[in-house]
Amino acid sequence: MTNIREQSLEQPVDVAEYLFRRLHEIGIRSVHGLPGDYNLIALDYLPTCGLKWVGSVNELNAAYAADGYARVKQMGALITTFGVGELSAINGIAGAYSEHVPVVHIVGCPSTISQRNGMLLHHTLGNGDFNVFANMSAEISCDVAKLTNPAEIATQIDHALRTCFIKSRPVYIMLPTDMVQAKVEGARLKQPIDLSEPENEPEKEAYVVDVVLKYLRAAKHPVILVDACAIRHRVLDEVHGLIEKTNLPVFVTPMGKGAVNEEHPTYGGVYAGAGSHPPQVKDIVESSDLILTIGALKSDFNTAGFSYRTSQLNTIDLHSDHCVVKYSTYPGVAMRGVLRQVIKKINQSELSVQPSPTVENEVTKNLDDSSVITQAWFWPRVGEFLRKNDIVVTETGTANFGIWDTKFPTGVTALSQVLWGSIGWSVGACQGACLAAADDKSDRRTILFVGDGSFQLTAQELSTMIRLKLKPIIFVICNDGFTIERFIHGMDANYNDIVQWDFKALVDVFGGSKTCKKFAVKTKESLEQLLKDPSFNAAECLQFVELYMPKEDAPRALIMTAEASAKNNAKLE
Amino acid sequence: MTNIREQSLEQPVDVAEYLFRRLHEIGIRSVHGLPGDYNLIALDYLPTCGLKWVGSVNELNAAYAADGYARVKQMGALITTFGVGELSAINGIAGAYSEHVPVVHIVGCPSTISQRNGMLLHHTLGNGDFNVFANMSAEISCDVAKLTNPAEIATQIDHALRTCFIKSRPVYIMLPTDMVQAKVEGARLKQPIDLSEPENEPEKEAYVVDVVLKYLRAAKHPVILVDACAIRHRVLDEVHGLIEKTNLPVFVTPMGKGAVNEEHPTYGGVYAGAGSHPPQVKDIVESSDLILTIGALKSDFNTAGFSYRTSQLNTIDLHSDHCVVKYSTYPGVAMRGVLRQVIKKINQSELSVQPSPTVENEVTKNLDDSSVITQAWFWPRVGEFLRKNDIVVTETGTANFGIWDTKFPTGVTALSQVLWGSIGWSVGACQGACLAAADDKSDRRTILFVGDGSFQLTAQELSTMIRLKLKPIIFVICNDGFTIERFIHGMDANYNDIVQWDFKALVDVFGGSKTCKKFAVKTKESLEQLLKDPSFNAAECLQFVELYMPKEDAPRALIMTAEASAKNNAKLE
Repeated sequence: MTNIREQSLEQPVDVAEYLFRRLHEIGIRSVHGLPGDYNLIALDYLPTCGLKWVGSVNELNAAYAADGYARVKQMGALITTFGVGELSAINGIAGAYSEHVPVVHIVGCPSTISQRNGMLLHHTLGNGDFNVFANMSAEISCDVAKLTNPAEIATQIDHALRTCFIKSRPVYIMLPTDMVQAKVEGARLKQPIDLSEPENEPEKEAYVVDVVLKYLRAAKHPVILVDACAIRHRVLDEVHGLIEKTNLPVFVTPMGKGAVNEEHPTYGGVYAGAGSHPPQVKDIVESSDLILTIGALKSDFNTAGFSYRTSQLNTIDLHSDHCVVKYSTYPGVAMRGVLRQVIKKINQSELSVQPSPTVENEVTKNLDDSSVITQAWFWPRVGEFLRKNDIVVTETGTANFGIWDTKFPTGVTALSQVLWGSIGWSVGACQGACLAAADDKSDRRTILFVGDGSFQLTAQELSTMIRLKLKPIIFVICNDGFTIERFIHGMDANYNDIVQWDFKALVDVFGGSKTCKKFAVKTKESLEQLLKDPSFNAAECLQFVELYMPKEDAPRALIMTAEASAKNNAKLE
Repeated sequence: MTNIREQSLEQPVDVAEYLFRRLHEIGIRSVHGLPGDYNLIALDYLPTCGLKWVGSVNELNAAYAADGYARVKQMGALITTFGVGELSAINGIAGAYSEHVPVVHIVGCPSTISQRNGMLLHHTLGNGDFNVFANMSAEISCDVAKLTNPAEIATQIDHALRTCFIKSRPVYIMLPTDMVQAKVEGARLKQPIDLSEPENEPEKEAYVVDVVLKYLRAAKHPVILVDACAIRHRVLDEVHGLIEKTNLPVFVTPMGKGAVNEEHPTYGGVYAGAGSHPPQVKDIVESSDLILTIGALKSDFNTAGFSYRTSQLNTIDLHSDHCVVKYSTYPGVAMRGVLRQVIKKINQSELSVQPSPTVENEVTKNLDDSSVITQAWFWPRVGEFLRKNDIVVTETGTANFGIWDTKFPTGVTALSQVLWGSIGWSVGACQGACLAAADDKSDRRTILFVGDGSFQLTAQELSTMIRLKLKPIIFVICNDGFTIERFIHGMDANYNDIVQWDFKALVDVFGGSKTCKKFAVKTKESLEQLLKDPSFNAAECLQFVELYMPKEDAPRALIMTAEASAKNNAKLE
């Protein structure tokens, strides 16, 4: 039974098909989620639109995976069911919002008719309110599209996907069961979805560029500091263009790790105030008379507990939607345009270029006589193990801080969740990142570092990795519980303990006994052996490593940040 | 440094102590949750207040466990950390809200000073908004207490706990790090917390009672129908008083299973419209000229897909906060007072009492020649296995529908989540329920029935059960995936498949190899043997049973309800 509106459509396509073809167009090839009766019919459309369904083991893991996928492949998608499914995923989506990761969250929900009639359906609060969960998600989404009127749906979808990409944050799409097969104009699909960023107003941009150039040229010790939003808002080409053109010393923040080529001669290390590495980075940045920051996100854990000692008078901040030069704010001026103009107009000869510190993986320096695998030695050693274009996923906790001391080869993509810091995230994110690389048919290795405490929260996502035949290298740092919490409060408190699991046996439980490899490593020597093993390096199957490290050892940056955090929590005025 | 307010306190106690002593007073002995830096100092207070800390493996599991605990022990408590922890738990809390379960959710959050300064802290959205998560939780809480001013905190806590109990729904308590050790008036603790329900207005109550009595006396075939809210709002003593006094036929809905003594001679079975059991219950209830329903919650899955065929003209509905007699509504008249008066005033001799159908566990009737364990045979067989006072936890899916055909011995408490229906819930709930029984020092057995698909979502909560030395009997129904979804849509769709795990090996992975028992049961004969084994029945350790059943078999009530659900999802007007 077609109505007049449908008859007027040039090329009617079903809503689910329209939505999924747009996801495919954007570059998504795999969609994460769990089945539920309000989304089942939609799922039937995935394969015909060139999308692979990845049933994860639970929704939170699926959300983490979609986040990890998006960090490697520009955008991720998640399908859950109304109420129960979407709320299980909401922490993962909140993390994507916090960390500027574009994830499309599609929620299959009761039909518009059931909603209108306020039916007492399963997966509801029993109060006839069908908007309550969308309202909750609105707080952590940059667009909410409730698809209830076929005449508007195609526009709503295009708008939501564009917003997701441009703002680099999650959007929420509510898809009622009776809209899945409603007809929308398929002819629109001939027109590519517009993901282009709005240009800056030329006069305004030119003004900002002039100011930036003026200060850059006048500065005696200018430096570049690259942070998270440079990655998330996709200006890394511009960042590298600026480095090439200026040869200025370039530093990254912890959340900016992986943003720049760490083998570039001007790369000088990690700036994180008192937690900087190498240590002289602190002085160089803080004594600089012009710090050009790109995509700054100055959170506590990204600054080693707010230990920045820089002055706004010496700072230019370029952001995705505004710029700040000293104390002048330029709303609506996006960094991409500014960077491009600066690159075009600047010459190295106009600049006072100071040398950058040399950054090395300080393995020998941190080697001690014992066989014990120390945090101080391990993370530089990881730097030597890594190879070009690896994807490195680090969990909140020791790994997120340890990695500050790891110098990356060219092309490494680093995933971490320093701001949101949800423990367990990295296991799901590893699945998504590894899958994204596989979808790109690349041979990039994905390497995960996760603590034993964090791993337990999301352990079963290992099952999905095995099912998908992914080949990550997984290091589970076995150090008896929540080390980061211990350093904040309760070094010996039993609430920071965990149950000892036979971690690597999970590989067998989840069906990987024949296809995966397992290792338990307790000494530097056996770790050396493993890291030098060509077959281990080749990463031709999933490899799971139990890595034993002492309970009360932690990376120096973690200890420093944890102390600052404890102090801040306790502060009384 | 004490201020004037503190000096005026008769018996100053720390906020955390005040809160936890109140929880203890209400009967809580174990508190679920996960540590996080914003809640660590509060956790130090638990042992001194007589509360046990149960670190679960993740927050969603912990929330499910607190829900299960509350269903057995009247109230449960959960402690999480700001943002990441609380949002991971929010689906569990939403379930408690939907299903009327009183859970106190305490969230450790950044200090009031950090909040006031809008600091860019970890576990935030990075936008300086510290109320966003409380706003989300407000949608699924009957009270939100932000503890920011010591002068008000004791009152806020007492109000929140009272509201939680009276409304039988979750409350949200936001505890900033700098308030944990703020001083409040400890002398208040000498006065017991007031959990008494407000009395009905006597004249109004008497009026309703008269109307109810009039119709009861006039009816030719009156029946009693007991539903979920009779359990949740704690009127089971009154329900049993009414049954004893009247001898009227009494039926339960699926969500009301366990509310009444199923060995009582007037117990007539489960009414769920077309899904009723025994089948004649449908006619008896639907031809009754007066159905007295107590605590009704007429959701789709509780009514076998809205298959009730009863008339409001023949119905009296008693609720926790209002009553409805035919089409007359009496707001503010609570069922407890009405029931007590009706019990007092009614005499059996005034009533026309019809016989109840006989309810049996129809094992023989459902026995077939094959060795295959069928759903039709299994659930009545479970009824014979159960014993007095068992706690039975059933998961959304086959178990929740199968259990309709199980007749319970006296005193069984049944836990299910028929309205909210979040898969995986039962594993956490089983931990909480089992722990509640242990906290009561009772020898009640806890028995869980969960499907393989659902079990995977929350599998690691088994680890907590092993650590706590709990002794549940866990049946994992291995039938290759999401059976309930298959019957709604996609019988052979791969999105309804799951990875095959070596389920029982998880017991060993989680450290239970020496303390727990494992079984794999594939035939009726071996199941019979197990169910008759005295040692298995004694339940002296955790027992884990893989129970193999065919993929395309399902309880009759599930098939019926799934069909109705599929139709409703597809309905176009």
